[in-house]
Amino acid sequence: MLNRVRSAVAHLVSSGGAPSPRPKSPDLPNSPSSTSAPPAVAPEAPKSPSARPGNWSGAPAKTSEARARFSRPTFLQLSPGGLRRADDHAGRAVQSPPDTGRRLPWSTGYAEVINAGKSRHNEDQACCEVVYVEGRRNVTGASREPSSSQGLCFYYWGLFDGHAGGGAAEMASRLLHRHIREQLKDLVEILQDPLPPPLCLPSTQGTPSFSDSSHLVGPQSCWSPQKEVTHESLVVGAIENAFQFMDEQMAQERRGHQVEGGCCALVVVYLLGKMYVANAGDSRAIIVRNGEIIPMSREFTPETERQRLQLLGFLKPELLGSEFTHLEFPRRVQPKELGQKMLYRDQNMTGWAYKKIELEDLRFPLVCGEGKKARVMATIGVTRGLGDHNLKVCSSTLPIKPFLSCFPEVRVYDLTQYEHCPDDVLVLGTDGLWDVTNDCEVAATVDRVLSAYEPNDPSRYTALAQALVLGARGIPRDRGWRLPNNKLGSGDDISVFVIPLGGPGSYS
Amino acid sequence: MLNRVRSAVAHLVSSGGAPSPRPKSPDLPNSPSSTSAPPAVAPEAPKSPSARPGNWSGAPAKTSEARARFSRPTFLQLSPGGLRRADDHAGRAVQSPPDTGRRLPWSTGYAEVINAGKSRHNEDQACCEVVYVEGRRNVTGASREPSSSQGLCFYYWGLFDGHAGGGAAEMASRLLHRHIREQLKDLVEILQDPLPPPLCLPSTQGTPSFSDSSHLVGPQSCWSPQKEVTHESLVVGAIENAFQFMDEQMAQERRGHQVEGGCCALVVVYLLGKMYVANAGDSRAIIVRNGEIIPMSREFTPETERQRLQLLGFLKPELLGSEFTHLEFPRRVQPKELGQKMLYRDQNMTGWAYKKIELEDLRFPLVCGEGKKARVMATIGVTRGLGDHNLKVCSSTLPIKPFLSCFPEVRVYDLTQYEHCPDDVLVLGTDGLWDVTNDCEVAATVDRVLSAYEPNDPSRYTALAQALVLGARGIPRDRGWRLPNNKLGSGDDISVFVIPLGGPGSYS
Repeated sequence: MLNRVRSAVAHLVSSGGAPSPRPKSPDLPNSPSSTSAPPAVAPEAPKSPSARPGNWSGAPAKTSEARARFSRPTFLQLSPGGLRRADDHAGRAVQSPPDTGRRLPWSTGYAEVINAGKSRHNEDQACCEVVYVEGRRNVTGASREPSSSQGLCFYYWGLFDGHAGGGAAEMASRLLHRHIREQLKDLVEILQDPLPPPLCLPSTQGTPSFSDSSHLVGPQSCWSPQKEVTHESLVVGAIENAFQFMDEQMAQERRGHQVEGGCCALVVVYLLGKMYVANAGDSRAIIVRNGEIIPMSREFTPETERQRLQLLGFLKPELLGSEFTHLEFPRRVQPKELGQKMLYRDQNMTGWAYKKIELEDLRFPLVCGEGKKARVMATIGVTRGLGDHNLKVCSSTLPIKPFLSCFPEVRVYDLTQYEHCPDDVLVLGTDGLWDVTNDCEVAATVDRVLSAYEPNDPSRYTALAQALVLGARGIPRDRGWRLPNNKLGSGDDISVFVIPLGGPGSYS
Repeated sequence: MLNRVRSAVAHLVSSGGAPSPRPKSPDLPNSPSSTSAPPAVAPEAPKSPSARPGNWSGAPAKTSEARARFSRPTFLQLSPGGLRRADDHAGRAVQSPPDTGRRLPWSTGYAEVINAGKSRHNEDQACCEVVYVEGRRNVTGASREPSSSQGLCFYYWGLFDGHAGGGAAEMASRLLHRHIREQLKDLVEILQDPLPPPLCLPSTQGTPSFSDSSHLVGPQSCWSPQKEVTHESLVVGAIENAFQFMDEQMAQERRGHQVEGGCCALVVVYLLGKMYVANAGDSRAIIVRNGEIIPMSREFTPETERQRLQLLGFLKPELLGSEFTHLEFPRRVQPKELGQKMLYRDQNMTGWAYKKIELEDLRFPLVCGEGKKARVMATIGVTRGLGDHNLKVCSSTLPIKPFLSCFPEVRVYDLTQYEHCPDDVLVLGTDGLWDVTNDCEVAATVDRVLSAYEPNDPSRYTALAQALVLGARGIPRDRGWRLPNNKLGSGDDISVFVIPLGGPGSYS
C-alpha cells in the first residue's frame, strides 16, 4: 500500500498557514520496525492444521533466517534464492506459483511483484486454501440422521495489503480463514438442512430439546412476528464476525509488539454454490463474465466513508482531542480568515455550504484531501482493515483506531444462477493494480490473454494474473517504472488472484 | 401515512412474552389533536410573498372555519363545498386542479385522495411554486457587471406526508421552499458565474476585497491542496440546510403546540437546467423516460436505516434508556431463553450470527419488524422527515427524535443531457401510491394514459396523476377499497405529482 499512511506534521495540527502533510516513512514511530519477525501463534489460534483436502498451508516458514525476516506465500514455493529475487526492488520480478508444482485450487491464477522501494519488503500477503469445517455435534439439539452431521468444505482466497509494517498482513494471511472456520462450526448442520435456520439454539449441546428447528422458535412464534433469516445471511454474519475476532487477536498480540501495522483484507469464500466476497480496505474484486463487468466490492477510504467518520467525531468529540474538527473544509482555514465565510460539509451533508469561520474551525479537519491523498487525521488513507491498534496521530497520543472499522462489506454471487464459460473470472487485486488501471482495462486484458490460450489449459489464469501485474508495474525507463503510454506504473506492491468461475476447477 | 406511527405497549418494553405492538390511533398522547389549527407564522419566516412569476401562493387560506380546520393545497382552488367533498372518507373523490383555472407550472399534473378513515383529515400536503431568489448584494466582494447580480428563479414541487397530525406537513408545505430560497440567496451571483465557486467569502459585504473568485482562496492556494467544489454541490448543500432550518423552526413552534406530528418530505427543485430531487422519508420519485425507469429517491425506514440507528444507540446508550437494546433479534427474546443462543445483528453486521442470550437482550429491540410493520422503538415506521419533536415512546419519557434525521438524500438529474419527449415524466408519490403499486406498473400506466392524449394536450399529465391515484385507491367492493385484481387498494392518503420533462412547460 503506497503512501497510505502519512504522518501529520505536528505544527500543522496546532496552527494554520503551515505546510500540508508530507509523505514520511511508512514506519510510524509507534510501530516497531517493518522488518517483521514471525508473529507468535495466538493462544486462541487453532493449533491443528486448517487446510485438509488441498493442504495449502498458509503457515509462515521458519526454516531460514531469510524467511524469518521476510515471508512470501508458501504456495509460491520459493527457494532461498527465489525469495531474494522476489525481494529485489530493482528487478521487480513477477512471482507466480511454479508450473511444475501443485496447482492452486480451481486452477486459480496468482501473480505478485514487490514495490519500487517505498518499503523494505513486499507488505502484501496472500492465502489460498481449501478449509474443512468439522461441525460441533448436535448444535441444534435436533435428532438427525448421522449423514447430516458431516463437515463442510469451503474454498478460500485472501489478499492482505499491509501498511506501516508487514506483521498484520502476514498474521491475517495465516489466521483469518481459521477464524472463519471457527465461526462456521456452529453452522455445519444448519447450512446443510434445507429448513430455515432455527432462530434460537438450546443451551445444552447434545441434549435434544426439540425434534425439529421449526419448533425451536418456541410458543411465541404463533403471535409474535418473526423475521426469516436465510442460510446465506448466516455465512455473511460468520465472515463479519471472523474479521472482528481476527482484529481482536491482533489487539491482544500488539502488547508483545508481535504485530506491527495494519492491513486491508479482501477475501473470497466459496461455500455451497455461492461466492462470498468480503472487503475491508481499498483492494478491489470484479467479475468479468462474458465481457460484462460486475463489481464485487467497493473501496473504503476517507472520502467514501467521510460521513461515517464525521458522525463519530461529532458524537464522540473526545476522540478528536483539541486538535481536530469533525467539519470538512475544501482547504485549510487560516487564522486571518476568522469571521469570513468558508465552504464546509458536516456529517449530514453531501453538498457544500458557507459558514462563518470560528476559532474551532482552525483545527485540522478529521478528513482532508482527495483521491489517493485523502487522509483520516492527516495520517491514514484507508478506513477499514485489520490491525493498526498502535496507530497514533504523529506527535500526539490521539489513537486513530476508533475511526477505523474492521468490518468488511460482503457481497454474494450465486454461481448456480449462470452457466459460466472458462473465460469468466473473478479478479482480486490490491490497490497497486487499481491505482494505474481500471475495470475496463482489466476486462480487456482478460479477453486478450485468455483467448490466446486453449480453454482447458490450466496455466492460462496464472498467465492472466502475470499480465495484469506486469501491465500495472510497467518497465524501467526514464528513471521510473513506466507504462506503454509513458505514464508512471505502480510503484506499490501489486498482487492479483484470478479465479476461474467456469474453469477446470472442481467445484464440489 | 398509514400505520406509520404506532404506540408501544408499555409492558412489552419491560417484560418478555407479552403481545407484540398493536396498532393504535395515530394521534399520539403527546401530540395535540389531529384537528390542525393553522400554524402561526414563525418569527424568522420571510414575510414577503415568495412566489413571484407564477403567483401560486402556498399560504394557508384563513377565510373560513372549514379551512381553518382542514386545509388543502390552494392550487386545488376548492370551494367550501369542494373542500367538504375532499374531506369525505366514504366517497374518496380524487382531487385535481380545475381544468378551467390557471395551470400549474410546466403543466404539472396533480391528483390526491383522502384516506379510508385512518385519520380524520388528509394528512398529505402539496406545494407547487415558482420562486424568485433575490441575491444578497456583492456577496463575493468581487466587482461585477450589474447584469450578473440579477436574481434567480427556481421551480419547486413538494409532497409532505404527515403522521400523528397534519400540522408539520402543512407547515412544511407553506415554508420549506422559503427556507430553500433563503439558503440560495448567498449563491445567486456565484451560481451564475462560470468560474468555480470561491472557497472563502469576505466578511464585509459590499466591500470588494479581491477582483475575482480565484484570488479569494488566498495565498495558501499555491501550496495547500484544495478541493474543487461544484455549483451543483452548493445547491445540494442549500437544500440540505433548508431542511434542517425547517426542522428547527418546527422545534421552536412546538413549544406553543402549533405544530403537531411530523411529516415525510419529497421535494424537487429545478434550477439552471438541473432537477434536484430531495427525499426524507418513504415517499418516492421515479423518472420514466422512453419507457426506462430511473429511480430518483430511496426510502428511509427502520429497515433501510437499521445500522445508522443501531450505531447511534450503541454510541449513545442513554438514548435507549433501560428499555431498549441496540441489538436486533429476529423475534422477541423470552426470559426463559436466557443462556440459550439466539440470532442477532449489531450495527456492524448485515448478516446474522448466534449469541448467548444475556439479561440485557430481554430489552425491547431499538429496531424491530419487517416491511410496513418495521418500527423504531416500537413507535414510528419512518426514520427521516420533519417535525416529531414531541414524539415519545408510549408510557415513557424517552424521546424518539434523536434517532430521526431531518436530512434528505438529494439526487441530481441534468435535463440538458438528454432530449426529452412529451412522454418523459418525473412521478412523485407518497407511500399511499407505492404501497400497492411498483415502478413497473407506474411506468405502464404512464405509457397507457399519455398515449391516449395528444402530445400537446396539457391536461394529459393531470389525467395521468388521476389514473395513478385511482389505480392505487381502487373502488369500494366487498367492504373495502379493492383493486381490479381484488386485492385491497391503499387506504392511506394518496398524492401524486406528474412533472413533464419534455412537455409544454417553459423551462427558462
